[in-house]
Amino acid sequence: MSGRVDEILSWYPTTSHRALANLRRMLEQGRTGGSGKLVVLPVDQGVEHGPGRSFAANPAGYDPRYHARLALDAGCSAHALPLGAAELVAPEYASELPLILKCNGSDSLFTGADPEPAVVASVDDAVRLECAAVGFTIYPGSAARNHMYENLRRLAVDAADAGLPVVVWSYPRGSGISTEGQTAVDVVAYAAHLACQLGAHIVKVKPPTAHIESDAARAALEKAGVPLETLADRVRHVVQSAFDGHRIVIFSGGAAKETAAVLEENRQTAMGGGFGTIMGRNSFQRPHDEAVHLLHNVMDIHLEYAR
Amino acid sequence: MSGRVDEILSWYPTTSHRALANLRRMLEQGRTGGSGKLVVLPVDQGVEHGPGRSFAANPAGYDPRYHARLALDAGCSAHALPLGAAELVAPEYASELPLILKCNGSDSLFTGADPEPAVVASVDDAVRLECAAVGFTIYPGSAARNHMYENLRRLAVDAADAGLPVVVWSYPRGSGISTEGQTAVDVVAYAAHLACQLGAHIVKVKPPTAHIESDAARAALEKAGVPLETLADRVRHVVQSAFDGHRIVIFSGGAAKETAAVLEENRQTAMGGGFGTIMGRNSFQRPHDEAVHLLHNVMDIHLEYAR
Amino acid sequence: MSGRVDEILSWYPTTSHRALANLRRMLEQGRTGGSGKLVVLPVDQGVEHGPGRSFAANPAGYDPRYHARLALDAGCSAHALPLGAAELVAPEYASELPLILKCNGSDSLFTGADPEPAVVASVDDAVRLECAAVGFTIYPGSAARNHMYENLRRLAVDAADAGLPVVVWSYPRGSGISTEGQTAVDVVAYAAHLACQLGAHIVKVKPPTAHIESDAARAALEKAGVPLETLADRVRHVVQSAFDGHRIVIFSGGAAKETAAVLEENRQTAMGGGFGTIMGRNSFQRPHDEAVHLLHNVMDIHLEYAR
Amino acid sequence: MSGRVDEILSWYPTTSHRALANLRRMLEQGRTGGSGKLVVLPVDQGVEHGPGRSFAANPAGYDPRYHARLALDAGCSAHALPLGAAELVAPEYASELPLILKCNGSDSLFTGADPEPAVVASVDDAVRLECAAVGFTIYPGSAARNHMYENLRRLAVDAADAGLPVVVWSYPRGSGISTEGQTAVDVVAYAAHLACQLGAHIVKVKPPTAHIESDAARAALEKAGVPLETLADRVRHVVQSAFDGHRIVIFSGGAAKETAAVLEENRQTAMGGGFGTIMGRNSFQRPHDEAVHLLHNVMDIHLEYAR
Amino acid sequence: MSGRVDEILSWYPTTSHRALANLRRMLEQGRTGGSGKLVVLPVDQGVEHGPGRSFAANPAGYDPRYHARLALDAGCSAHALPLGAAELVAPEYASELPLILKCNGSDSLFTGADPEPAVVASVDDAVRLECAAVGFTIYPGSAARNHMYENLRRLAVDAADAGLPVVVWSYPRGSGISTEGQTAVDVVAYAAHLACQLGAHIVKVKPPTAHIESDAARAALEKAGVPLETLADRVRHVVQSAFDGHRIVIFSGGAAKETAAVLEENRQTAMGGGFGTIMGRNSFQRPHDEAVHLLHNVMDIHLEYAR
Repeated sequence: MSGRVDEILSWYPTTSHRALANLRRMLEQGRTGGSGKLVVLPVDQGVEHGPGRSFAANPAGYDPRYHARLALDAGCSAHALPLGAAELVAPEYASELPLILKCNGSDSLFTGADPEPAVVASVDDAVRLECAAVGFTIYPGSAARNHMYENLRRLAVDAADAGLPVVVWSYPRGSGISTEGQTAVDVVAYAAHLACQLGAHIVKVKPPTAHIESDAARAALEKAGVPLETLADRVRHVVQSAFDGHRIVIFSGGAAKETAAVLEENRQTAMGGGFGTIMGRNSFQRPHDEAVHLLHNVMDIHLEYAR
Repeated sequence: MSGRVDEILSWYPTTSHRALANLRRMLEQGRTGGSGKLVVLPVDQGVEHGPGRSFAANPAGYDPRYHARLALDAGCSAHALPLGAAELVAPEYASELPLILKCNGSDSLFTGADPEPAVVASVDDAVRLECAAVGFTIYPGSAARNHMYENLRRLAVDAADAGLPVVVWSYPRGSGISTEGQTAVDVVAYAAHLACQLGAHIVKVKPPTAHIESDAARAALEKAGVPLETLADRVRHVVQSAFDGHRIVIFSGGAAKETAAVLEENRQTAMGGGFGTIMGRNSFQRPHDEAVHLLHNVMDIHLEYAR
Repeated sequence: MSGRVDEILSWYPTTSHRALANLRRMLEQGRTGGSGKLVVLPVDQGVEHGPGRSFAANPAGYDPRYHARLALDAGCSAHALPLGAAELVAPEYASELPLILKCNGSDSLFTGADPEPAVVASVDDAVRLECAAVGFTIYPGSAARNHMYENLRRLAVDAADAGLPVVVWSYPRGSGISTEGQTAVDVVAYAAHLACQLGAHIVKVKPPTAHIESDAARAALEKAGVPLETLADRVRHVVQSAFDGHRIVIFSGGAAKETAAVLEENRQTAMGGGFGTIMGRNSFQRPHDEAVHLLHNVMDIHLEYAR
Repeated sequence: MSGRVDEILSWYPTTSHRALANLRRMLEQGRTGGSGKLVVLPVDQGVEHGPGRSFAANPAGYDPRYHARLALDAGCSAHALPLGAAELVAPEYASELPLILKCNGSDSLFTGADPEPAVVASVDDAVRLECAAVGFTIYPGSAARNHMYENLRRLAVDAADAGLPVVVWSYPRGSGISTEGQTAVDVVAYAAHLACQLGAHIVKVKPPTAHIESDAARAALEKAGVPLETLADRVRHVVQSAFDGHRIVIFSGGAAKETAAVLEENRQTAMGGGFGTIMGRNSFQRPHDEAVHLLHNVMDIHLEYAR
Repeated sequence: MSGRVDEILSWYPTTSHRALANLRRMLEQGRTGGSGKLVVLPVDQGVEHGPGRSFAANPAGYDPRYHARLALDAGCSAHALPLGAAELVAPEYASELPLILKCNGSDSLFTGADPEPAVVASVDDAVRLECAAVGFTIYPGSAARNHMYENLRRLAVDAADAGLPVVVWSYPRGSGISTEGQTAVDVVAYAAHLACQLGAHIVKVKPPTAHIESDAARAALEKAGVPLETLADRVRHVVQSAFDGHRIVIFSGGAAKETAAVLEENRQTAMGGGFGTIMGRNSFQRPHDEAVHLLHNVMDIHLEYAR
């Protein structure tokens, strides 16, 4: 299936060979390797929600090395993690498992109406820790969005120099949009488009709901008769909004939920043309073998819909 | 008609030969080439208004390459586009079609009383992507205007070093002026003048209305008997405000409208001495051939009034 | 009278020979050359008030080259102008006419309680455009004053490296003082003193009124019996506040007014020991020959009081 | 017991040999040397609370050299101190006693809802003053937290270049959390985790109370049945939150208190797996010999629980 | 008495020989030379309060050179002055009279609740103008204090590179403390301590009153029985707070007052162990010979208490 990987890489004609090699490494890694699908294990929940909420359910997870092991055991495409964890994990795992260094992040001890993550790791760190990519979160809809976009561009320029692709978590939130609007289909599509225009190689968004936040967007989508009823429909609109499907867009799972719901969400995502998933709490809060099993099932769903 | 291009270039005696060569390239490109007129296709609406509102009407437009193709097919002078699109488009189109890299921009997921675009591309990016010019938006009237002007100057200094001309979108908005005032003739003339004083090679403004925002300006204009009744009159005042017509000022079309209205607006602009138009939604939201037809008609109107 | 110029230059013992040569150039230029008096033509009103309010009265002024021509024709000491105008004017005029590049400025599309000009030109620009000096505005009394002072110092350090003298427009305004206080004699004297302490070679202030803004200043001035009744008295206090008359202080004319008023104001300024005037709207809004005539009359008044 | 030190150092596989040598120096220093336990004497209370509140009780402490002497006499692992004190103390003591240069700090003459310490010393200072480590305070929960985290990362990068380990004081406070929440067990665990993710080699937190600030954390901890009744239990949760015990976490004593309370707190800390203590006012506000005696007792408790 | 100077210099073991040579120069200069006492003439009142309030009483003072002459005539240890004055004064006086370049300062045309001085001179300026030291003001108690502390550290690092000692004016003010608290004995002691911890070589504070601002400080001082009744007592506490007397602390006189009051204040300061005074308006607003006479008397009082 490696033709599909070549096809995907052809969409990035101004990306350096070194960065494409790292992108290829993730696309060839693990159980979905070569299919054009990506299943990533992200573990920044200790930073984002605190250690107890993240790891008490499965205390093995307090040790960052557990997650790297789990990602390898399950055949994930890559493992995303914060700096401190990478300091502990990288020497043992960076050669076997593509690591995505999460370069900014937010804790929840302070929350404001217009959130902005702290930038706490750099491309230099990623190079030093032999990561395969850098990750960065933006919050479109926040009054602080411009600062995030500009910081993302600085990171992307450094990453280009270092031969690293850029993975963007594009999560609308802030005083510019309603809570419901954070996952509205028009907003998620917009967030994906913005990440592409900012130079992302891989975009991560949340599964879009049927809510439409902007009246002007609703009018345009209705006039054009864009189908948005099923999650698969909405995923299709989001993927189309990412340069007509010429950027890798993956979908996150959010809070822990039942296995059946996880699988159905992934099936819809795959049917809509999503490139895969990034699944944290739903995997690492389960016991190891159960998590591997679930990840395998998810990967197989995505493989089913691979071109 | 190339004498007209030489004449225009003579107005920029402190611009380097390399930057003049790029300016000349746009003035010699396409159907209006050599006439001193410019018709530019801008596509940053995905960033500014979101992908659905921009491209659902003509889904071919989700792919950035469509617009470069359209600009070439219609014989446009140049194509303005954001960074992410340029990353995809440049290798194939930059040698045939002058690209203007839009270096800042605003999405509409957050809107405040005093807007400021994010600066998300640089002259280094423009050079790397072989663009012919850089574009930058300023919002006179915003509390954040000074930051924009200072960033524009930084960009212009870099652009001069790199041999790239600077195109300034000068759009008054913000808490300093009323909504009606954003297109008031005194305000648009002021905006054009400011862009010239900031070192713009090409200035893009909106067609001015008959509204006058400032009492002091009204008194001065009435006392001097400046005719402002027709759009042509007002365009003439705006062009005069741009160093007595010694800077290239082009006018944008704004929201999509009927063909007749588009053509009449362009005729008035041309009669008033405007140097051309920059027309996005009115072209790319139409089907390809219809868009080419309309652009040809618009170009022919401007050619009719070329010196 | 060149001994007077030597005397004035001796007050700047830590200024480089190159910068003194530029200062000398202005002091030796034009009709007042060699007298120690300066009459400067400033044209930043297009930026500050808009093109219509500034140039509709005499439309020749829309073209920046008109003002350089006028300054030469009238025998002015120098011509102050913004970057964009200098880009057009410098190649033709910089060798004949000392140009002062106005490096910051404010438009009036946004006005706040605590104004701050945008810094939109640099010493590098001034060198590139072969200007004889750089100009910078500060607004003592504004909450943003410190930022302006610090930017002025950065500019002055660069200017010293480049051999350019620094002309400071010291205009009190902002939430720290009343509107009447902007031209109060204690405030204008304070503003002149601050500019000197910030390293200005030439200070430009407004003609001081008899109003006294600060009670503590009134008490001190009354106790010391400082005469402040006539404009000449007040100018004398302002000049004394500028290192006891060892810095060049010139006075601006403000809004356009009748010829007699202009001449009387200049006579009072000259009687009080002012070093000259900087006169914009009162000159360039008149027809060319009338403007030259008025400028000659003003110069002759100042020459009358030259030492 | 040096095997324990080697084991601890093995948890920092991406830290340079030079920085590990400095970390080892502290772990091998003084009465607890080689045990894996650390007892540090910090004296930044003059800065944090003022000289009278800090030193009037034992006036010998006004002289910074007193504290270095005390730390040596008591066999402390290291002495943490601000820049000015280090300027006086370092030449005499830096070779005998590992000094931790406290690079930021807060005085209490101004206190706001969202505190942030001033950054007043650098890695360059630490190198110049031959310190063994740098110290930095963060306040998770403050609106200014991101700025602190980003400054900490800058410091840590410089420190890595210079071969110095980083000690982080992680003290939750600010408008994001309640006063009681500053020492809540979930918050302290979160604060320890954040410091680890930011790259700290040693983390200093306050002894956690039984209060739980976040409902979501309470739910997760209760569901998992995490024991939190005794201080030892809570210390165990905090240490686990620090990469499952693979980072050095030490606990501070806070305000001066009775000897018995100090000893009991330290015993609980040691039982819970804490790596030691950092004890200021409880030591230096006592007379010298009494302070040495107390520190010895504290050290002996920690040695008792060393592995 | 030069042994005393050697003793004082020994308290700065990490200061370079070049900077110590400049410190020694001030300690050996003038009437108090060699005694360990310093009497400095500061003239930044033109900046701080305006020219009329400062110099109308003795108009010779409008010329900055007057003050340098006065400082020399009176045998002062040093003369502190702003940049503009130094530009005029330095070539003639810098070799005979140690100049302290005041690198930041505040005018009073704008005053806010949380003041911050503008940084308007640099170590480069001090070197260029052959000054013996740099001066910097901090306002503990202001919301902007951290920015001042951080700027002071930047200045101090530059000064160390250039071999210049740092003189810190530590003036508590701002929304963190009451007006009465600005001179409270606990606050002044705190301010002196902070300046020492920030690396000051010489600290200048105001004479402390018997008011105590902080309840916690009062409790600690009362418990320890610290005598604070006389000004001498309070000066002793302040000097003790400055590293137990191992930093040079001098006291300012504030507003102009009667001769007897000036002399009594200085006697108390000297009795309490203060290292001297910095006296502006009380000297330069008197006629020259009266000012010299008063300064001699003040110096003699301090000499009387020299060790």
